[in-house]
Amino acid sequence: MPSYKFTYFPFRGLGEPVRLLFHLADCPFKDERFSFEEWGAVKSKSPMGQLPILGVDGLEIPQSAAILRYLALKFGFAGKTPEDRAWVDAVVDRFKDFFVEFKKFLVAKRGGKSEEEVAKVVSESVVPAMESYFKLLNGLLERSKSGFLIGNSITYADLVVVNNLETLRNFGFLNASEQPKLTALLEKVYSQPGIKEYVSSRTASDF
Amino acid sequence: MPSYKFTYFPFRGLGEPVRLLFHLADCPFKDERFSFEEWGAVKSKSPMGQLPILGVDGLEIPQSAAILRYLALKFGFAGKTPEDRAWVDAVVDRFKDFFVEFKKFLVAKRGGKSEEEVAKVVSESVVPAMESYFKLLNGLLERSKSGFLIGNSITYADLVVVNNLETLRNFGFLNASEQPKLTALLEKVYSQPGIKEYVSSRTASDF
Repeated sequence: MPSYKFTYFPFRGLGEPVRLLFHLADCPFKDERFSFEEWGAVKSKSPMGQLPILGVDGLEIPQSAAILRYLALKFGFAGKTPEDRAWVDAVVDRFKDFFVEFKKFLVAKRGGKSEEEVAKVVSESVVPAMESYFKLLNGLLERSKSGFLIGNSITYADLVVVNNLETLRNFGFLNASEQPKLTALLEKVYSQPGIKEYVSSRTASDF
Repeated sequence: MPSYKFTYFPFRGLGEPVRLLFHLADCPFKDERFSFEEWGAVKSKSPMGQLPILGVDGLEIPQSAAILRYLALKFGFAGKTPEDRAWVDAVVDRFKDFFVEFKKFLVAKRGGKSEEEVAKVVSESVVPAMESYFKLLNGLLERSKSGFLIGNSITYADLVVVNNLETLRNFGFLNASEQPKLTALLEKVYSQPGIKEYVSSRTASDF
């Protein structure tokens, strides 16, 4: 087996789905977590000047979705057919479209903007983006026989979506009574062997 | 061979790399182009409420990068090894990060903002994003033995990057003397059999 090292910041963010995937696949990896200071010192030597980075026997692969797809294909969590794999990719890309809008909220919140300014970002960017994104996810889950987003088993699309749903829940954008299907997906993914133990022992982070 | 239909707007945008890929692979497809009015009439029935969409014997696949990856894997333009394929994915994802910033310019320009406001978007968003993006692309091309971005042959990452480089050139952000390697990549991709004939006969579009 190759020697894997996964480098990201010490919070969930865009890197956590990779950690979840390693735990789901029961595959050992070095879970390296950099503070912003530590990252600043090595950033210029990294492939794209960005985290996360996956190390595979010394080769470095950047970009969270590329890392996830690479590992999920190896571990068997990328979808069972070429068409399922394309839809898994499409859901992850669609999440990224949503995240472009949601990130404006995180930036406003963490940038110390006034409550009024944050509320403006929520109503103008987050709420409309969330409406169409949730509609898609609910549609997929309505047609799903497995309870997962695509096909008959868990894929890395479920990990990406659920990790963000937890963030949305932490900030009050998701509650079980309004979104029972999405909440059920979150609980289903978090109860998978490997993921369950990891989630119950990890350090909590808002995002 | 499956029956392919590719639906997008009547300009290059995020859909053109898929058209380039079909022509590169010499694979017949229905090149369906919707006006905004035509799209508005069918949008609510589409998988994600977004174009492009690929139809494969009636199955619909959304999201430009998911479509490209799906077809490139079939046609042999996705990279030769799992590691090359991951890097191809990573470059396309990195392009999307850049495009989030560049799109602000297109939105400002088309939204009829003042020259001053457009200039502000350019200096605050486009220029810094372009600097780090071009640095990455130039680094890949410096290490490349084939003249393509990843590995020893053309991949869909080249198509995505080149289609956007043309847009950057059209708006004055790319010139040959400052960016000889990127300009050479553009010319190399546009001289590929299949692509060459298509590019010389297609209707020009700024973006």
